[in-house]
Amino acid sequence: MYGKIALEEAWAIEENFKAYDVSSLAPKGVIGGDLIANLLDAHGTRLQQMDENGVDMMVLSLSSPGPQGQADPAEAAKLATLANDRLSDEVMKNPKRFAGMVSVSMHDPAQAGQELRRCFTEKKGFVGCIINDYQSAGDGNTMLFYDDPKYDEFWKVAEEMDCPVYLHPRAATPLIHEQMWKGRPWLEFSALGYAHRVGMHFLGIVTAGVLDRFPKLKLVIGHMGEHIPYDLYRIDHKLNRARFPNMPMRKDRLIRDYFGTQLFITTSGHFSTPALLCAMQEIGARSIMFSIDYPFESIPNGCVWYDEHVPISGHDLVDIGRNNALSVFSKLTNEVHGLETKSPPDCGVGGLGLRKGYEGEREYGLYNRDWSQRRR
Amino acid sequence: MYGKIALEEAWAIEENFKAYDVSSLAPKGVIGGDLIANLLDAHGTRLQQMDENGVDMMVLSLSSPGPQGQADPAEAAKLATLANDRLSDEVMKNPKRFAGMVSVSMHDPAQAGQELRRCFTEKKGFVGCIINDYQSAGDGNTMLFYDDPKYDEFWKVAEEMDCPVYLHPRAATPLIHEQMWKGRPWLEFSALGYAHRVGMHFLGIVTAGVLDRFPKLKLVIGHMGEHIPYDLYRIDHKLNRARFPNMPMRKDRLIRDYFGTQLFITTSGHFSTPALLCAMQEIGARSIMFSIDYPFESIPNGCVWYDEHVPISGHDLVDIGRNNALSVFSKLTNEVHGLETKSPPDCGVGGLGLRKGYEGEREYGLYNRDWSQRRR
Amino acid sequence: MYGKIALEEAWAIEENFKAYDVSSLAPKGVIGGDLIANLLDAHGTRLQQMDENGVDMMVLSLSSPGPQGQADPAEAAKLATLANDRLSDEVMKNPKRFAGMVSVSMHDPAQAGQELRRCFTEKKGFVGCIINDYQSAGDGNTMLFYDDPKYDEFWKVAEEMDCPVYLHPRAATPLIHEQMWKGRPWLEFSALGYAHRVGMHFLGIVTAGVLDRFPKLKLVIGHMGEHIPYDLYRIDHKLNRARFPNMPMRKDRLIRDYFGTQLFITTSGHFSTPALLCAMQEIGARSIMFSIDYPFESIPNGCVWYDEHVPISGHDLVDIGRNNALSVFSKLTNEVHGLETKSPPDCGVGGLGLRKGYEGEREYGLYNRDWSQRRR
Amino acid sequence: MYGKIALEEAWAIEENFKAYDVSSLAPKGVIGGDLIANLLDAHGTRLQQMDENGVDMMVLSLSSPGPQGQADPAEAAKLATLANDRLSDEVMKNPKRFAGMVSVSMHDPAQAGQELRRCFTEKKGFVGCIINDYQSAGDGNTMLFYDDPKYDEFWKVAEEMDCPVYLHPRAATPLIHEQMWKGRPWLEFSALGYAHRVGMHFLGIVTAGVLDRFPKLKLVIGHMGEHIPYDLYRIDHKLNRARFPNMPMRKDRLIRDYFGTQLFITTSGHFSTPALLCAMQEIGARSIMFSIDYPFESIPNGCVWYDEHVPISGHDLVDIGRNNALSVFSKLTNEVHGLETKSPPDCGVGGLGLRKGYEGEREYGLYNRDWSQRRR
Repeated sequence: MYGKIALEEAWAIEENFKAYDVSSLAPKGVIGGDLIANLLDAHGTRLQQMDENGVDMMVLSLSSPGPQGQADPAEAAKLATLANDRLSDEVMKNPKRFAGMVSVSMHDPAQAGQELRRCFTEKKGFVGCIINDYQSAGDGNTMLFYDDPKYDEFWKVAEEMDCPVYLHPRAATPLIHEQMWKGRPWLEFSALGYAHRVGMHFLGIVTAGVLDRFPKLKLVIGHMGEHIPYDLYRIDHKLNRARFPNMPMRKDRLIRDYFGTQLFITTSGHFSTPALLCAMQEIGARSIMFSIDYPFESIPNGCVWYDEHVPISGHDLVDIGRNNALSVFSKLTNEVHGLETKSPPDCGVGGLGLRKGYEGEREYGLYNRDWSQRRR
Repeated sequence: MYGKIALEEAWAIEENFKAYDVSSLAPKGVIGGDLIANLLDAHGTRLQQMDENGVDMMVLSLSSPGPQGQADPAEAAKLATLANDRLSDEVMKNPKRFAGMVSVSMHDPAQAGQELRRCFTEKKGFVGCIINDYQSAGDGNTMLFYDDPKYDEFWKVAEEMDCPVYLHPRAATPLIHEQMWKGRPWLEFSALGYAHRVGMHFLGIVTAGVLDRFPKLKLVIGHMGEHIPYDLYRIDHKLNRARFPNMPMRKDRLIRDYFGTQLFITTSGHFSTPALLCAMQEIGARSIMFSIDYPFESIPNGCVWYDEHVPISGHDLVDIGRNNALSVFSKLTNEVHGLETKSPPDCGVGGLGLRKGYEGEREYGLYNRDWSQRRR
Repeated sequence: MYGKIALEEAWAIEENFKAYDVSSLAPKGVIGGDLIANLLDAHGTRLQQMDENGVDMMVLSLSSPGPQGQADPAEAAKLATLANDRLSDEVMKNPKRFAGMVSVSMHDPAQAGQELRRCFTEKKGFVGCIINDYQSAGDGNTMLFYDDPKYDEFWKVAEEMDCPVYLHPRAATPLIHEQMWKGRPWLEFSALGYAHRVGMHFLGIVTAGVLDRFPKLKLVIGHMGEHIPYDLYRIDHKLNRARFPNMPMRKDRLIRDYFGTQLFITTSGHFSTPALLCAMQEIGARSIMFSIDYPFESIPNGCVWYDEHVPISGHDLVDIGRNNALSVFSKLTNEVHGLETKSPPDCGVGGLGLRKGYEGEREYGLYNRDWSQRRR
Repeated sequence: MYGKIALEEAWAIEENFKAYDVSSLAPKGVIGGDLIANLLDAHGTRLQQMDENGVDMMVLSLSSPGPQGQADPAEAAKLATLANDRLSDEVMKNPKRFAGMVSVSMHDPAQAGQELRRCFTEKKGFVGCIINDYQSAGDGNTMLFYDDPKYDEFWKVAEEMDCPVYLHPRAATPLIHEQMWKGRPWLEFSALGYAHRVGMHFLGIVTAGVLDRFPKLKLVIGHMGEHIPYDLYRIDHKLNRARFPNMPMRKDRLIRDYFGTQLFITTSGHFSTPALLCAMQEIGARSIMFSIDYPFESIPNGCVWYDEHVPISGHDLVDIGRNNALSVFSKLTNEVHGLETKSPPDCGVGGLGLRKGYEGEREYGLYNRDWSQRRR
């Protein structure tokens, strides 16, 4: 489909690479050529591939772990501000095609809220906020989690700004790595560990009652929901309040009740049709948004999957591929970015003769003119 | 869920039974007790079972074949007018719980349009129109189909009145019965033949370009779409325009493209989870509306299936169960009927402690207090 | 996947075209180039496309309507015998890649049984029998249906020979065409009418108790079950024996109970993922077999859909794509054809480095080496 | 369905409760009455509920953490031997209805193998082995994982004995609890943490190449696969061997390739239809087996869900509910337990008049005689 919006798309500044060795993510050549070059780029190869693959808009965010990786509060805040200023500049070079997510240091909830407010009121081009799981603190083994009541001060600002918060994964602390993943490092990262940690954190925030206290706050997680949709029955079933009377979340609510209004997922990096169908069954199309996870994933891979392999109705395809993002990230519709909802025909979904280059084949419908080739 | 709206619900007047032997549909006792009594009733057993099963609103229509069964044009028109007047009276006794569909004789498109207009402008309580497949004419073996261009005169009025037209099945002509079904009469009716005939007629209207000429016209069919959703790929694939250059439907459209804006289905009489999931995948939740088909189906059967067995998200459940009907049958929201969209919590969907009688079990969540019984 | 078996694949002899005008099926060029040439061919283009698309075996059958289109009994029997002799010769030129279905005239059950027996005992290369819906008789408007008890004589032989009978669709009689389809001919054939008629006939045979009297008899229908899987709940629900006490099928059985042991479907001409998933849910993977419907469908279309777009487990993919055919059509495993069951790795399903030409990319797993292209 | 086999069913001995405070699992009354009494019971309430709910066979295992909770090697081995001797006795009182899983201390792979061999050769009633995630060692914060090559000595015996190994979850170490779960303890156990830890361990064993070195070894995990089926695409995609060249698993295999032959899941404690359908799509019906997780789950809850709410074909229902267990746990078919595969009619699946007590309603088929009640 044309007109897709992609939400979990990484971008970086040179200064970020000082903070961690990006080759730990991928030796050069292993995933998609030059990872660093792809992270630094916006208007070159990235935009070209967006054009080639029907992506209208990419919402960029500083590559994980960003400020969350800085155990030093001042360093973390400094990186956030620097990255936000640069990202605003980058996005505003082409605001119809790019928007940004605010990075924040989460050492101090008040300061995090201030930075978020600054970006949403004084800078242009921001539509949401990204936080890379726990905030490293102390010696690097201390994890700050945002289900602590003191973070209400931050959530309050996010709600006030109508700023959805995207909870993105990151690697484990050295201590946890040593305890659990050392003998099987291939599982620590995107294959498994990322989802474990960020899924726990996400559910921690929900069960802490944050969404109840801030009923307009919206949280987003990627990777098809970090397997939460699949487990939703079991999670809700096991959060027995008689056993856990101190769990703060409203007693008349299930986790599933927050999806579609306050909780949302994206397809980033999990281009799996069975998982998407399961998520649609459990949380509904309205809770799901397309994303790629570039450059850790290939734009063509994600888009060809979505455009050609996902067997769902045209309306749902266009909602998940585009329109849902406009209601969740409402700033995408403001005068800076100017995005509007589209119908399936607007996006070339359904119909015949809509695909560029095949207008002359209209009369064949879903048939091929040439029997020896697969129809496009 | 509370607040369900049911759309394909039969009702009858004594005079209708003169036209055909209702015992041909079901010997007394075979389906749900006394079929005739159930057809004649609105405010008694029917309303009681609606209350017991969370049905807010039933849209009533004269039992099939209605005027379509009258080969004599004058008799058909007379029956339609009589039934419409009676149905308006019946509905207006309790317009928050009942609404009606207009019956029309389809012998003469102009007259059909006039009767539809009369009911929508001079009578109260109507929200749609029902037509029971082909109109019998001549000796009873002549079938009038509404894909004939002369029926544009009728479709024009339906569009102008914002009146969705529900295409309901009926039995075969004597000639077709003799040719195809005589040796296997159990297949002629609701098990198979109904769907064959009305599905063909429905697709005939669409492929004749009626929806293109009347782009705000909405058509509805029941029984989970008379298997069209399952066959949609094959139908669209085989409507090759090079082979059928004279097919009037827009060449840049597929049948599937009309679902969700002009075509809709209901769940009447087909309480099948695999079929519903398939339909949701092919045409999307927005194209589907709950219905029962009372009294040919049991209200508890249909409602218990929908309320307890359908494994879909709360938002989709409430949209299919209620909200979609309000956007398709927009008159349901006028001052006469006064229905409003509802959220999952409004309908007791999701959450805990919302179910009447179990408030005290709130703390057990999805657990049972009593291990030897299934949780309600 | 490599090793696929395709079961509903048409082939023709020149003499067959005398019986009907093949251009009624498709004007030259409309579907896949030269339809007649493709029907006559086995070892040329057809085999080449089988090689290119991972099809091990095609079971060929005389193009519809075959003998069923001959209202004259002698002509019908003559055509069947001629076609069977020719098909045996054709198949035996390359019996590891081709097998045949017996054609029979169904005017006389005894004669049909004799021809079936002759082919299975005196000729080589046959693995099943194909019947193209009703047998035309009399003036061409008489339809013979095989749920008539007199056909037990034929079913008995089919069971005795362990010969699955494939019920294939055909066009309507002139009378039915005139009554129902004339105004919308694009719906009469593969888009809709084929399925209606053959589905009714198929259910007629089952409800007549044929499978009860011949408990080892197997029936197969194509086109993803002619929408029966989608409607199975409604069909079984509506075959109320209190209403239809004379229906001969066992009263303790539902239609669905016969699937997987006596009833089977194929994917021919309906390359729809939602329909396949629905069928798997309703009748199970064991009841489904891959087929293409060449040359009315394109071999690459059918195979690319099956190989790359069907989101099911490797075991089910290989069962549906190959192994189920070996248990249903057991003659495929005899010394003539010599086919054996295969595992997913045998068929290149799953794993890495198994795809021809990509061995060097093994270490990338599901990743692409080249980020700008979709992974194969 | 009648004839179900349940595989992950907890049982305990008094001595086990000395090792840990069972009230940490559930205060009395919170889940299903008296948890301790239910754990100690086999032939009383448990068997009665099995009878009432169509469970033919329960395979019992010592309640988690069992020997894995004993950091002291001698204590762990002693507990295993004691529990195994007691369990054999218990099971042999009624071996047609009960079987057992061997408990092992995993401090010493050789000793674990010896105990497994002893139980399989010298004791009666064992059909598999259960291990509760990591083995606690040292001060209780040391976790032993069985992807360490030294455990090959144990896996070798399991393969030789044809003994499937069930990997069951357990709670975190005190250190991990302190680091990750302290602020949100409701998530640590069955709601989330159990699955995280045991899923990682399970995938650790597979990626370590254990299944490649022991190609007849079978591993089983519960809780609908601890969300691995949902994530399978992402897991396989991210195990990029160019990034992780030292990962021992065969380079030409994906994780998904092991399901159905060496990897299996059960439904224990996750009675979710969307999850089951997703798992069936990803790993196929043959990889899935019914289980309950009694007494942490209610027998009626699990069985009513499976018997009445799971919308799959009869063959798949009976395979998942019973037959798959007989091929995975092959000892269930030996002379001690004597279980045999069954067909859907054997299990009362499909058909009419098979349900006890409703024989007289046979002629109504899927209809109700009484329209005001839901059909049973």
